[in-house]
Amino acid sequence: MTRWDHFAIGCAILVAATASTLARADDQDVIDYRQHIMKTLEEQAAAISQILQQKAPAENFNIHVQILAITAATAQKAFEPKVLGGEAKADVWVRWPDFAKRLDALTAATADLASTAKAGGLAAAAPKVQTALNCKSCHEIYCVEKKK
Amino acid sequence: MTRWDHFAIGCAILVAATASTLARADDQDVIDYRQHIMKTLEEQAAAISQILQQKAPAENFNIHVQILAITAATAQKAFEPKVLGGEAKADVWVRWPDFAKRLDALTAATADLASTAKAGGLAAAAPKVQTALNCKSCHEIYCVEKKK
Repeated sequence: MTRWDHFAIGCAILVAATASTLARADDQDVIDYRQHIMKTLEEQAAAISQILQQKAPAENFNIHVQILAITAATAQKAFEPKVLGGEAKADVWVRWPDFAKRLDALTAATADLASTAKAGGLAAAAPKVQTALNCKSCHEIYCVEKKK
Repeated sequence: MTRWDHFAIGCAILVAATASTLARADDQDVIDYRQHIMKTLEEQAAAISQILQQKAPAENFNIHVQILAITAATAQKAFEPKVLGGEAKADVWVRWPDFAKRLDALTAATADLASTAKAGGLAAAAPKVQTALNCKSCHEIYCVEKKK
């Protein structure tokens, strides 16, 4: 089956009731979920990087930084369940206060980036990108980076 | 180099001036850019699917449908340059009016999904997910689907 077949099956299981607990989430679900979020951040960061290099439409810059900011705010909840695996090192939970603080900083910096872009566009926001998206500083500590 | 090294290099090239043309974008840049957008849609659709199956935090549902709606609106511009390659079939540009119409429909349906979720939460929006995210109907025509 293709990934879209999988998704179509997922779509078919429509749950009408809200559920605040994850009674049926197993460890792989937890890993999958946080990877969906981190991959979204990665794709959006890459799109922003392309725009800064004039290799993608500049008029989409504000939208991408907005998506980035909204997505960043979902990451901490996704990492709360202590489930080893994926690309996360055990240090995520061993040093949780530091990890959480760094995600808070990412959330704040990307929110600032998005509001700067909204007010002043690419020219105003571009100088803030490098600080907001200092991905490597966390990945070196907490991420088992896969070589491309 | 890891993908984050690549991104760090991208970040270092900060362009202060806005650029509405893509003078330096080559064909691979165009393909990369649209893939960043489609992968973001895919990751967010997968997160939404997990929530509908109670395998991810329901409280993030509204955020994911919002990201989905915002991202969907960027897709058409990304496909405008007629550059064959990636997972896009030539029919994207041969039958552009149909393709564009379908992207407009996706944009409208995901925007409606996001506003329904904002007003009535997961319970109100869940029944609309399958219609809004009928990804397969387009992918079967326009996408060279890679088997997982």
